[in-house]
Amino acid sequence: MTYCVGLLVKEGLVMMADTRTNAGIDNISTYRKLRVFGEDGKRIISIASAGSLSTTQALVNRLHEGVKMPGNDEPEFLETAPTMFRVAQIVGEAMVGAKKDIEAVVQQQEGVEIGVTLLVGGSIDGRAPRLFLIYGEGNFIECGLDTPYFQVGELKYGKPVLDRMLDYRTPLRKAIKIALVSMNSTMRSNLGVGLPIDMLVVRPGHSTAAVTRIEENDPYYHDLGASWAAALKDALNNIPDPAYPLPGEDSGPVAAKS
Amino acid sequence: MTYCVGLLVKEGLVMMADTRTNAGIDNISTYRKLRVFGEDGKRIISIASAGSLSTTQALVNRLHEGVKMPGNDEPEFLETAPTMFRVAQIVGEAMVGAKKDIEAVVQQQEGVEIGVTLLVGGSIDGRAPRLFLIYGEGNFIECGLDTPYFQVGELKYGKPVLDRMLDYRTPLRKAIKIALVSMNSTMRSNLGVGLPIDMLVVRPGHSTAAVTRIEENDPYYHDLGASWAAALKDALNNIPDPAYPLPGEDSGPVAAKS
Repeated sequence: MTYCVGLLVKEGLVMMADTRTNAGIDNISTYRKLRVFGEDGKRIISIASAGSLSTTQALVNRLHEGVKMPGNDEPEFLETAPTMFRVAQIVGEAMVGAKKDIEAVVQQQEGVEIGVTLLVGGSIDGRAPRLFLIYGEGNFIECGLDTPYFQVGELKYGKPVLDRMLDYRTPLRKAIKIALVSMNSTMRSNLGVGLPIDMLVVRPGHSTAAVTRIEENDPYYHDLGASWAAALKDALNNIPDPAYPLPGEDSGPVAAKS
Repeated sequence: MTYCVGLLVKEGLVMMADTRTNAGIDNISTYRKLRVFGEDGKRIISIASAGSLSTTQALVNRLHEGVKMPGNDEPEFLETAPTMFRVAQIVGEAMVGAKKDIEAVVQQQEGVEIGVTLLVGGSIDGRAPRLFLIYGEGNFIECGLDTPYFQVGELKYGKPVLDRMLDYRTPLRKAIKIALVSMNSTMRSNLGVGLPIDMLVVRPGHSTAAVTRIEENDPYYHDLGASWAAALKDALNNIPDPAYPLPGEDSGPVAAKS
C-alpha cells in the first residue's frame, strides 16, 4: 500500500508520501514515491504516486522522454511547460500512454492491478503553488479552497484529522503537523504504509522547494506520535461517560467521569 | 453504506449499527440493521448486518423459518440453540442458503452486489457474552481478548480510535463512549453512514439486553461530537509545530507553539 497526501494552504504547498512498497505482506521494500522534476531555480514540480509501481515507472519514463500532446508535433516536457495546468495535462497524457503500454503486456490477466493515481503539485516562476489529482484514466481535478487537500492510496485512516483540522488559512508549519498526524494514524492502522516519509514544501515567491526525508529515528516525528496518542487518551477521558441504561440498571450515573 | 461495530470487554458486549440505507446517494432511507432474537428472558442474540439488504432479508427469513443443519433432519432456530457457537453456525448456514437464493435470481449480473457481512453477539442463560463475525461465505471467527472488537461495513474511518483506546479491561460505559466516537468519526467522513444509531448492551449474569436508539436530538451524542472535535483541536495545538526547513529559511523555529 501507499499513502500520499497533498495540502494546499495560503502559505504554501505540502506534499508527503510514505516509502513502503509491498508485493504481498512477505515482500516489503522501501521505494521513493515522491519524485521532483525541473528544479532549475525557476520551477519546482513534484509527483506522488499510489498504485502499480510498473505503471508509475512507465509513466515517469514517458515524462523524461517527452510527451506527444494532441495538436503538437513536438514532444512536451515538464521542465518547459508554461503553467502547472499544462503540467497536469502532460502528466495525464503520459498516464494514458503508460496504461496502454502495460495493458499490452499483461493483457487483462486476472488479479494484475495496473492502476495508478497521482498527486501533481508545484510552482512555476514563484507563482502561487497549485495541486492536482490525476486519475488513472488521465483526467484530473485541481485542489480548491473549500477542501484544501488531496489524498491517494490508503486514504481513509488519515482523512478524519484532515477534515477536522485543516482549512485554507491554516499556517504552513501547522499544516505540516496535521499531515504528519494523518500519516501517523495511517501507519498505525495499515502495516503496508511505513517510514521513512518524504516531504516537499513549496512556498509562493520561492522557486526552490524544501525536501525532507523523515526517518525512523526522527525525534520530532517520534514525539508527535507519542504526544498525539497521549492527547487522544486525555481527550476521551475528559468526556463524561454516557448514562444510557445498562442491563440490570434503570439508568446509569449522569455524566460520570471515567 | 453501513457501519456496525461490536465491542467485547470484560464487563459486557456492546453492539452498534447506524441506520442509513442508500441505493445511490439520491435514494436514502432509514433501516434497522441491528436485529434482536430470542428475548425470552433466558437468552439475548443480536445480529448487525452490512451489505446487500435483499440478501440480509433472505437470511433473516431463513432464521425465522428454521435452518436445516448438516446431520440434523429437524430445522434449528436461534431461539433454541444451546450455545452462542451453535448460533454462529446456524447463521453461517443461513448465509450460505440466502446467498444461493439471491444468486439464483440475479445470475451474476454485473454491478449487483449481493454480499453481506454480519456481527452476531449475545448471551445464553446469563453466561459471558460472545461475539462472532460471519463472513459472506458463511464461515466465521470469534472475538478474542487481544483485539476486543469487530467491525463490518465502512470500517476504516472509525478504526484508529478503537485501536488506540480500547482493550479488554476498558469499563463498559467507557467502551460505549469509544464506540460512539468511532461512529461519530465515520459519520463525519461518510455521508452514507447516518443517525439514528441502534445500540444493544449485554452484561454477564443478565439475560435481558438494554436496547437504545440514539436519535438526532440525543443530547449526550451531540455533546460527544462537539467535545471530541474541540479536544482534538486542543490536542493538536498543544503539540509543538515542526521545525523542518522551509523554502527560503535555513531552519525553522525550534519547537514553536502554533
